[in-house]
Amino acid sequence: MADEGMFNLKAYLSDKRAAVDGALAAWFPKAEGPLSDLIAAMRYSLFAGGKRLRPILCIAGCEAVGGNQEDVLSVACSLEMIHTYSLIHDDLPVMDNDDFRRGKPTSHKVFGDAMALLAGDGLLTEAFRMMTSKEISKRVPPAVLVQAVQLISLAAGYEGMVGGQVVDIQSEGKEPDLETVKYMHARKTGALITASVTAGAVLAEAGEDAIGRIRSYGQKAGLAFQIADDILDIEGDSEILGKQTGADENKGKMTYPAVLGLDESKKIQSDLIQSAIRDLSEFGNNAEPLRQIARYIIERKK
Amino acid sequence: MADEGMFNLKAYLSDKRAAVDGALAAWFPKAEGPLSDLIAAMRYSLFAGGKRLRPILCIAGCEAVGGNQEDVLSVACSLEMIHTYSLIHDDLPVMDNDDFRRGKPTSHKVFGDAMALLAGDGLLTEAFRMMTSKEISKRVPPAVLVQAVQLISLAAGYEGMVGGQVVDIQSEGKEPDLETVKYMHARKTGALITASVTAGAVLAEAGEDAIGRIRSYGQKAGLAFQIADDILDIEGDSEILGKQTGADENKGKMTYPAVLGLDESKKIQSDLIQSAIRDLSEFGNNAEPLRQIARYIIERKK
Repeated sequence: MADEGMFNLKAYLSDKRAAVDGALAAWFPKAEGPLSDLIAAMRYSLFAGGKRLRPILCIAGCEAVGGNQEDVLSVACSLEMIHTYSLIHDDLPVMDNDDFRRGKPTSHKVFGDAMALLAGDGLLTEAFRMMTSKEISKRVPPAVLVQAVQLISLAAGYEGMVGGQVVDIQSEGKEPDLETVKYMHARKTGALITASVTAGAVLAEAGEDAIGRIRSYGQKAGLAFQIADDILDIEGDSEILGKQTGADENKGKMTYPAVLGLDESKKIQSDLIQSAIRDLSEFGNNAEPLRQIARYIIERKK
Repeated sequence: MADEGMFNLKAYLSDKRAAVDGALAAWFPKAEGPLSDLIAAMRYSLFAGGKRLRPILCIAGCEAVGGNQEDVLSVACSLEMIHTYSLIHDDLPVMDNDDFRRGKPTSHKVFGDAMALLAGDGLLTEAFRMMTSKEISKRVPPAVLVQAVQLISLAAGYEGMVGGQVVDIQSEGKEPDLETVKYMHARKTGALITASVTAGAVLAEAGEDAIGRIRSYGQKAGLAFQIADDILDIEGDSEILGKQTGADENKGKMTYPAVLGLDESKKIQSDLIQSAIRDLSEFGNNAEPLRQIARYIIERKK
């Protein structure tokens, strides 16, 4: 399936996205009964047109070391729930106060601030339930599953994504410096992307060395992803992005282009991807999806 | 230790609280470096004088079926993190907009709304990391730990505590009815209290029957706890409580006294505790802490 040269990234992404969407749709009940608004709010953001990059990286990380999609699908989906909760909370008026995301009104614009807050809380908590669900418990040894919960909670938590958000807020309007932006990007976006691909390898019971190489790929691809986001906010097409460009500069956000300029940022982004691809050299054709995803990360238009 | 008649609840609660406080204090690093404000905010609410009821119920549930405190301490602490996150988010201006809790300014009054939101997110995520930490993984079979993560995430999530919050908000100012208040209390407070004591029994590898009886105790004690809260908001001493009484009525909250009146609410509360204690009849002296905690739940002044 991952035959080099023949490999079709578009079809691969589309296949995996369908699998993830199907599993997520099946997981939540219909929005009815006393909790109908809450379920509707969680579903609204979960199905607002995300790329499913984190779940796909989890599956591709698993496949790179010889594992099967079915063994990681629940964990893959849970990563999308965590990502989605972070977007809902990030968009709230007390945070970035964004009205649109992916061309649609943000959660609090549709459901109100309190419900958006609770929908985020619900998604984050539910992620840990899906991560440890019966479906996956039947396929993966419990000790391995516990390890995956550990690494994902570390990446999503205060030392990871939540910490990155804090630095993001606190650095707004300050003089940009490379150390801060690196620290922030590694946590805000990098940590969960790294955890996604690493969890795939861990759940496939890869050896320590292989897990280390996949993790290294994830760290580089994760940072490149955030630099690409920084660049898209300057050079992107706001219609394709589904949100206004120039938002980072308006808000005084610390970004790679703000610190190093566009050209240097593009060079670093490209070097990171080359290096990430080199980390995969020992995995052969199984890692072709990860290689092409790495290239896609910096070539994407949204 | 739990010798009936001789058993000293005050000393027991104080011992357990010290164990929980010690483990929580050791878990978080010092508030320094780029994340110092976030760590300070998490610590502020975690050490704001909570009763540690959920962790203590977890330990007591474990001991009731013959288990040891050391085997569940990490999970017990993680329950307090989940409880604390829920209080921080609940106090936010977009939710209950409370300025004081336990006699101290609420998190957002001290750290600002964004930091309070993120401190809550951080605590919830960190709970799942502590729940699956090396300390507990060494003591409990991973399959049992996965089961505990399952039941706690279910109780804390959209079908449990988060769902209860939603019903709480949506029922404000509406004509009180018993069905809604029961549904809400079972989720908002009851679910996590039930999960706490049940997780203790699960982690001690009790049989299905014993777990079922402990769960039944938890459901009754959890509902009684929330009814007691409702009553304290009317009859309590605001100085002892550390917050203004009468808040529920001012906000048009749905409570047991609002639906059934004070006398009937007290009768139900007392019947629930009697029934919860009967659920423990087969556990002998090991369950004496749970029995006395049940009585304490409705006799407490805060």
